[in-house]
Formats: sequence, structure tokens, C-alpha cells
Amino acid sequence: MDSTQRERCAVETKGCAVHTPVDLYLETWNATDAATRERLLADHWSEAATYTDPMVDVAGHDEISATIAAVQAQFPSYVFSLVGSIDAHHRQTRFQWGLGPAHAEPVVIGFDVLVSDEGGRIQCVHGFLDKVPG
Amino acid sequence: MDSTQRERCAVETKGCAVHTPVDLYLETWNATDAATRERLLADHWSEAATYTDPMVDVAGHDEISATIAAVQAQFPSYVFSLVGSIDAHHRQTRFQWGLGPAHAEPVVIGFDVLVSDEGGRIQCVHGFLDKVPG
Repeated sequence: MDSTQRERCAVETKGCAVHTPVDLYLETWNATDAATRERLLADHWSEAATYTDPMVDVAGHDEISATIAAVQAQFPSYVFSLVGSIDAHHRQTRFQWGLGPAHAEPVVIGFDVLVSDEGGRIQCVHGFLDKVPG
Repeated sequence: MDSTQRERCAVETKGCAVHTPVDLYLETWNATDAATRERLLADHWSEAATYTDPMVDVAGHDEISATIAAVQAQFPSYVFSLVGSIDAHHRQTRFQWGLGPAHAEPVVIGFDVLVSDEGGRIQCVHGFLDKVPG
């Protein structure tokens, strides 16, 4: 990062935390209020974003929002959190997430690769499952 | 798989092994002959296929072929092989690969997600590194 970039980052982040694609992704999954979720999708996900995991293969904000709402209904009060570290380069990021009660061991652990578009918005999510309830 | 699909598979695979995207991917990386590599790319990779790992971000058969040739030149006589198992669903596959002397412990281990197009050809490769020489 050169000094101009550092300066721009400092201005952009003044007074607010830096949000990585993973932060914004987990925030979207944890947004139980539909309007909040749709705002997060509109602001931080490509219009034609795709989301694919072993159970679903959907595209666009409406389908992704409905998928998230269905999972939230299946696991009420559970929250999504980052598990381990983030490995990112170019426009792709890999990480593990957990789903479970807040501040407790996750019941489900998954692994995703997020691909961002040129504007930094989430464009493709390639999801896999690492641990599911027995 | 229904009986029609089974029959079609049986016909298609008569006299030759079934090639998964991962087989074809590793075969392409192990093809040191440029013409063989270009044939594999033409037959099994989308025309606009992308390949992104921590070092390179390329698109199209020519750039991918040149990337593979450069890695082969850097590690002469090493071969790529599958490490562990393959996890595939919808059009996406995750797996680890190793690079090292044939029949020996890999020197480099990487992790890729392959995304196939509707015709089953490799469309996007999202690559990461798990182990590099110290």
C-alpha cells in the first residue's frame, strides 16, 4: 500500500470499521430483518450474484434473501460467525464459517469461496459443508 | 441416476475411463507437450476460462497454457496429483493437489475450487496455496 492508498483508506474508514467481503457476507446472513438484509444485498452484492451450496443454487438478491430467510427459520436464534482465518488474494477469499448459538461452539461449519466483482461487491459464493449435525 | 442416464454413461465410458473435471484439470497441468496441453484446453476448458491463484490471474486458453508451461519450467520433472478426496456438487468441486516428484511426498500443496460451465467444461479455477517450500 503506498502513501496515497493509505491516506484514502484513512479517509474512507474515519469513524467506521473496515468491512471486508467476509464481514459483509456474515452480516447479510445474520440480518433477520428483511429490509436490512435487502439493503445489505443492494449495497454489497452484485445484482446478478450467485450463491451455491450443497442444498441450493440461486441467483439474484431476491433468491439469495429468500435462501437466507429459510435457513434463519430452520435455525432460529443461531448466528453465523467466522471460524479461523481469512485467506484472500486478487478478488477471491476463502474462509470457514460457523452456525450455532451466540458465543457457543458452532453446530454447523461450512467453507466458502467468495468472489468479488470489480467494484468489490460479492459476485459468486461457492459454498461447501465441513461439519453437519450427526 | 436413472436407467437412461446409466445406459448413456455406460455407452460413453465404454472402453475408456470416466474423466472427472479434476482428472482433466490435473492432466492439463501435467501435459508438458504444448500441443497436448492445448488440445486438453480446447476440449475440456471453456474458451473464456479463468485461472486465479496467489501468483497469477489469467484468462483464456493461451494465457492458461503459458502459465502452466511457466510452472513446469520452474519445477521440471515434478508432477501434479490429487491429495485427499474430491467434494463436488452442482457445478463446483473442491480438492487439494500436490506438486512434487512422481510417487513422492508433494513439495507444494494447493487447494482449488473448479467451477464448470453448463457443458461440463472448466470455466473458473479459484486457487489457493496450503503448503509451500519453507
